[in-house]
Amino acid sequence: MCAPDLAVIAAHLEGLEETIISKLIDRAQFKINHAVYTAGRSGMAGADEESLFDLRLRYTEEMDALFGRFCVPEERPFHTALPKPRRIVTLPPSGLKIAEYGAVSLTAEIRRRYLELVPRICEEGDDGQYGSSVEHDVYALQAISRRIHYGALYVAEAKYRSDPERYRDLVARRDTRALTDALTRREVEERILDRVRHKVAYLQAEVNRRVRNVIDPEAVLTFYRDHVIPLTKEGEVRYLFHREENR
Amino acid sequence: MCAPDLAVIAAHLEGLEETIISKLIDRAQFKINHAVYTAGRSGMAGADEESLFDLRLRYTEEMDALFGRFCVPEERPFHTALPKPRRIVTLPPSGLKIAEYGAVSLTAEIRRRYLELVPRICEEGDDGQYGSSVEHDVYALQAISRRIHYGALYVAEAKYRSDPERYRDLVARRDTRALTDALTRREVEERILDRVRHKVAYLQAEVNRRVRNVIDPEAVLTFYRDHVIPLTKEGEVRYLFHREENR
Repeated sequence: MCAPDLAVIAAHLEGLEETIISKLIDRAQFKINHAVYTAGRSGMAGADEESLFDLRLRYTEEMDALFGRFCVPEERPFHTALPKPRRIVTLPPSGLKIAEYGAVSLTAEIRRRYLELVPRICEEGDDGQYGSSVEHDVYALQAISRRIHYGALYVAEAKYRSDPERYRDLVARRDTRALTDALTRREVEERILDRVRHKVAYLQAEVNRRVRNVIDPEAVLTFYRDHVIPLTKEGEVRYLFHREENR
Repeated sequence: MCAPDLAVIAAHLEGLEETIISKLIDRAQFKINHAVYTAGRSGMAGADEESLFDLRLRYTEEMDALFGRFCVPEERPFHTALPKPRRIVTLPPSGLKIAEYGAVSLTAEIRRRYLELVPRICEEGDDGQYGSSVEHDVYALQAISRRIHYGALYVAEAKYRSDPERYRDLVARRDTRALTDALTRREVEERILDRVRHKVAYLQAEVNRRVRNVIDPEAVLTFYRDHVIPLTKEGEVRYLFHREENR
């Protein structure tokens, strides 16, 4: 993507909604299973300070790192000190102007907020399905993270290009609030929230509730409104502060 | 599950349909990307004889093995020579009467048939999204495999218990065809196929086709009819031939 076009980026973000929602619904087929988030209860030999969730996320990222996942701008890892890629990854030019993608990483925040979402979509209790629970946690977390970082990087660059002078000025003044306001499109956000709520309701409207757990559309809407959208904007601000020509 | 009840098993299998379908839809958001299935084109140093798909499946299973995935009866690996689990997995009694779950493994067949399905659900071409393609291949493959092996093991045990004398006799005669006939419930199969086709169509009916690739419900119905259901029955027959008290 040499010249990121806002309509193309928005379309990609819209397409990622189904992926996020389907992964949350998959996670919600298992109970909360608090044990998987408790350090020292993983059942894993020698891992007293990590939970099963921590371990699954770390092992997955170690594998993903070998495959070159984190060479992709929007794939930001939750861990540092990952192995170097063993795979040669050839990417098209991103059009982004940032030396270090890590500068926009919001993974610590995403992790924390995702873990607060789990009890809102899963049934209380313990079904013993620990492996499946954390496996789906990692899928969901990675899908959410990809959406936030993709938005942060590409939306910011596209908006910058639409009015470089204005954004350069706001960055020069280090005015985070005005920058956030400039990046905000309230009507776009409302459209996203309506669409997300509708998708969650629609995708589950016909399921057999005796065999599938159903998640509350409001829980996902709230997550988007209070976390996905604000974190994306926080990432956009960070991107602009670190954008090469602005520094 | 001490005494597997056919209605409970059928409900679980029905619940897995959404999981399989959502993972196939996720995979179909990327093009076929033939390169990922071609040995020597993985870009991975020193891996000349494996494709990127092969490598992703193997690395995932090596990680999963450490977490104890394959201690679960219906989780049959695609590879042998996997590391031993590092995690202590406590499972409820399965109610199954088989010494070696590997005896019912159909993973080689499932892998082959899944790879034939990919060109029927993905758009022709190459979008360079190799890492994501094989990641979603593995998710889909594991979901399909879990469904087939779960059905093979638990449905066979439940049907056996409903009429032990009849099944013992068929097994004693090594009459595979009569055994398959006895295990077949044509009306149940028709109901599954109708349901699967409807789910695939329904889940995609409202998506924005400019941002999401849509898969043909007939492709998934055909896959269920020609592969998922027959392989499940083949697994049921194998289970009964290996059932402890029948040998």
